[in-house]
Amino acid sequence: MTLTSPAPLHSRIGVLPGDGIGPEVTREAVRVLERVAKHADLQLTFTEGMLGGCAIEQTGTPLPAETWELCKNSDALLVGAVGGEKWDSLPAEKNPGLGGLLRLRRELDLFANLRPGLSYLPELSPLRDVNIDILLVREAVGGLYFSPERGRGVQDGVETAWDTMHYTAEQVRRIGIVACRLASERGGRLASVDKANVLESSKLWREVMREVVADFPHLEVEHLYVDNCAMQLVHRPNDFDVIVTENLFGDVLSDEIAGIVGSLGLLPSGSLRTDKFGLYEPVHGAAPDIAGLGKANPSAAILSAAMLLRHSLDRPEDAAVIEQAVTTVLQRGIRTADLANGDIAPVSTSAFGDAVLAELDDQY
Amino acid sequence: MTLTSPAPLHSRIGVLPGDGIGPEVTREAVRVLERVAKHADLQLTFTEGMLGGCAIEQTGTPLPAETWELCKNSDALLVGAVGGEKWDSLPAEKNPGLGGLLRLRRELDLFANLRPGLSYLPELSPLRDVNIDILLVREAVGGLYFSPERGRGVQDGVETAWDTMHYTAEQVRRIGIVACRLASERGGRLASVDKANVLESSKLWREVMREVVADFPHLEVEHLYVDNCAMQLVHRPNDFDVIVTENLFGDVLSDEIAGIVGSLGLLPSGSLRTDKFGLYEPVHGAAPDIAGLGKANPSAAILSAAMLLRHSLDRPEDAAVIEQAVTTVLQRGIRTADLANGDIAPVSTSAFGDAVLAELDDQY
Ligand SMILES: [Mg+2]
Ligand SMILES: [Mg+2]
Repeated sequence: MTLTSPAPLHSRIGVLPGDGIGPEVTREAVRVLERVAKHADLQLTFTEGMLGGCAIEQTGTPLPAETWELCKNSDALLVGAVGGEKWDSLPAEKNPGLGGLLRLRRELDLFANLRPGLSYLPELSPLRDVNIDILLVREAVGGLYFSPERGRGVQDGVETAWDTMHYTAEQVRRIGIVACRLASERGGRLASVDKANVLESSKLWREVMREVVADFPHLEVEHLYVDNCAMQLVHRPNDFDVIVTENLFGDVLSDEIAGIVGSLGLLPSGSLRTDKFGLYEPVHGAAPDIAGLGKANPSAAILSAAMLLRHSLDRPEDAAVIEQAVTTVLQRGIRTADLANGDIAPVSTSAFGDAVLAELDDQY
Repeated sequence: MTLTSPAPLHSRIGVLPGDGIGPEVTREAVRVLERVAKHADLQLTFTEGMLGGCAIEQTGTPLPAETWELCKNSDALLVGAVGGEKWDSLPAEKNPGLGGLLRLRRELDLFANLRPGLSYLPELSPLRDVNIDILLVREAVGGLYFSPERGRGVQDGVETAWDTMHYTAEQVRRIGIVACRLASERGGRLASVDKANVLESSKLWREVMREVVADFPHLEVEHLYVDNCAMQLVHRPNDFDVIVTENLFGDVLSDEIAGIVGSLGLLPSGSLRTDKFGLYEPVHGAAPDIAGLGKANPSAAILSAAMLLRHSLDRPEDAAVIEQAVTTVLQRGIRTADLANGDIAPVSTSAFGDAVLAELDDQY
């Protein structure tokens, strides 16, 4: 077996539905993967595990040992959503988010957070003339959010608090390589975003990125300051292809892109490392207020499943079929309550899933 | 004389036109202030000084001692723009930006950077249905951009770089008070932006802001995470009034707002401290490629002069007259080349100024 061998014919998917609307949207995503497997001659096994609040209820911890085992024995993970008011006041390590999902991402070293922004329904965007297909690649286990030095205290009699934006050349290099590879498979354009005119960590970022892109001479590369990028995203969103940036900058810019797309219900995400193992999940939260009512939009979960096929199972064509099916269904006016407007009667979560399955049957 | 006495009838304006298009746009701003002074019974004296590249040429330093004296003997400063390729490679302390303008802002302790975003010409915005009147208040002398601890080196054999986001309670308090006062004078709504779910410095920011706003019970206050704010600015820009945030977040969000307004040529700014002394300047740069051609848009400089009247000279009504005059002229289709489209023949910098002066004559 060589390093570039295709994914094995038989792939193990760990499914962690989580809390709130997590289970109902994940169910549709699994149905979609099963249908694709049938059509595309893929062998997938799905094993469910507990993560987040539901795991706390059953086992007392948001990330039980069995879930941890499941993750290590899977080729990719499909996550729903975690959290809810009930567990909000728990300390960090016992919390569905920090102690569950974020810990999982960090301990699995899923350093490359992928946030695609696509104009599935341009009319949802607050912008005129939008037709974006952006892939934001965010460094997700370093930078200001994982300060090695942070604290709070009284310095010289003054109440003070601090965090550290810290990067090593290797951290920048590995995310840079991921971004360059992705740009090579897509539109061939890469924007690397930093604040190299002010920050030491950004100066290192830019130096290393210049080295990394030298190995991808076919790419069209620009280096942007983060403030300028925030402006350009509004000004000329259609021009961007892949954007790569550090953790905090990526957090802000990915949400700006979400605003440009116009609906959180359509946004999938993936968290990868170099060996193709990845965790895929909707950007939206657990939305406990509508949980179990069949109102949730499963689009983001289904599109996350498509990302799983593309990035972890080497199945870009099948991913594209799913994405096309979701687009077709949405554009045909079959929509859950969050996207139905006055003229459209909303469909349920599972009815939306049914429509996507029917569309898949047509397309294969 | 009490602390709340109005500005003296005679105010001293230090004028630092700077480089590139700085002199030509500043000239129009001064003409506007002179005209307002005539109509509104204000006594203004204007004293010119050198800042930036022009100062390097004449004296060898971007911030000569005479300029420094002028600043200390002024009630407010009007700045054009500094910089140009010629001086780009100079070391930081000799550089028109870092060694001139930024040093001036820092040494004068101008901690409150004000960036208004207004829909003067809604059709310029990439967004539909935009009608914004946002005042972003950015902490400008602390945070990640003024790291007390920053550096570059080899740690445990690994090339590493780091910056520190550092705040004291007092730094947060003083910018919070400025923002609350401004919100009280405007729409009565304040959004304080931080990342208190992750950062220690943001936790301090939110705690202190909660204390500060308690003294302004009439304000409608929301606390937003910076990523969410970046999304909301695209999603519901018209809902914002005053936004207050730390240095880096403010840098990014203010440029996002600039993108929403749709033209850098319309954006003024001010940098204040608590005693009302302030420095006012366009957001745009020196644009050396069009310097001296009479093509530059003086709107941002003129609107900066309006901010000077409002924030340093206690003349909000006169500021509003200028803002209205600029709006009227623009909407009438009198525009410099940057904003003229196919149907409109562009006017020169001074012709635009003339139109604003004529409009002022009408309005007083
Ligand atoms: Mg975020
Ligand atoms: Mg900026």
